Amino acid sequence: MKALERKIVEEGKIFPGNIVKVSGFLNHRIDVKFMMEMGKEIARLYPAGVNKILTIEASGIAIAVCAANFMNVPVVFAKKGKSNNIQSDVYAAEVESFTHGTKYNVVVSKEYLSADDKVLIIDDFLANGNALRGLISIVGQAGGEVVGCAIAIEKGFQRGGDNLRKEGVKVQSLAIIDEMTDDSVRFREQ
Amino acid sequence: MKALERKIVEEGKIFPGNIVKVSGFLNHRIDVKFMMEMGKEIARLYPAGVNKILTIEASGIAIAVCAANFMNVPVVFAKKGKSNNIQSDVYAAEVESFTHGTKYNVVVSKEYLSADDKVLIIDDFLANGNALRGLISIVGQAGGEVVGCAIAIEKGFQRGGDNLRKEGVKVQSLAIIDEMTDDSVRFREQ
Repeated sequence: MKALERKIVEEGKIFPGNIVKVSGFLNHRIDVKFMMEMGKEIARLYPAGVNKILTIEASGIAIAVCAANFMNVPVVFAKKGKSNNIQSDVYAAEVESFTHGTKYNVVVSKEYLSADDKVLIIDDFLANGNALRGLISIVGQAGGEVVGCAIAIEKGFQRGGDNLRKEGVKVQSLAIIDEMTDDSVRFREQ
Repeated sequence: MKALERKIVEEGKIFPGNIVKVSGFLNHRIDVKFMMEMGKEIARLYPAGVNKILTIEASGIAIAVCAANFMNVPVVFAKKGKSNNIQSDVYAAEVESFTHGTKYNVVVSKEYLSADDKVLIIDDFLANGNALRGLISIVGQAGGEVVGCAIAIEKGFQRGGDNLRKEGVKVQSLAIIDEMTDDSVRFREQ
């Protein structure tokens, strides 16, 4: 999505440790009008065959809601850790966070995923793919089908997306960063 | 909002400790079509005078995005705790969670709130008002103006909303629960 690549270049910031900060429009301040365009693009990639979107709190929620708005399906967001408002009857997977260097559980109530579900997994970022693997595991535990994974920004150089593709998972990212230096970003041709 | 009251009665569940579980459409599984209706209603309450929406992760994000879609303003969501992706240059406030019995910090990068901002604060729930007070404090630290607070579901019997109203804060909730028993919910006439 060329408009997203332009936005990353114009508004993103690069920090040491291969961190690209897009909190100005994606995951702290949300440019809702632009995110709706991203949601529309995801809906265009999945015109049929999806009855549920699964994402993960917190920064996946906004883009998932924007895509759902065009796809007319509900969103379920996986929670991190445990919440007193969720009963023990959950699907759970352990995820190691690249950004924070920590491990956490992602949990989804069994009420909200079933073997009938054809799930599009959406997230804002894909780096080593651990969060995505956690969500894929949860859909599998429910007996549902992962139709595909739609990501806003993939860090291609961290290989998480390509490894999943090699395993046969359909992973589409609106922008894939194959190389970052202190002052430039190179995107993968798609 | 009568449609929300109906939805709480039909789809919500009441648990001991005055917990009303609406995770089937509001804060775990999201009924995006219905949430867009809630967003439209919030936009109707604030036809002008707002240039930014502030909410708090995670379950405030969806309804904030839906309202922003009709108000054509960006959303900023406050983060809980600290993130390596946010620099130290933040506004912060301590919040005590009613649901979890814990304390946490809410933080917003100074980049995304300023003295020019006329802010509508949005959240999914209002109980004792602590999260809302944290967000109000953060807007104040930035020198901005809180135009109002729009909430999906207020637990009126916990007084957080009424205490804020007495202090002169404009707080509007789409549904206010004044009384809950094991098998019934009484809403405040609005």
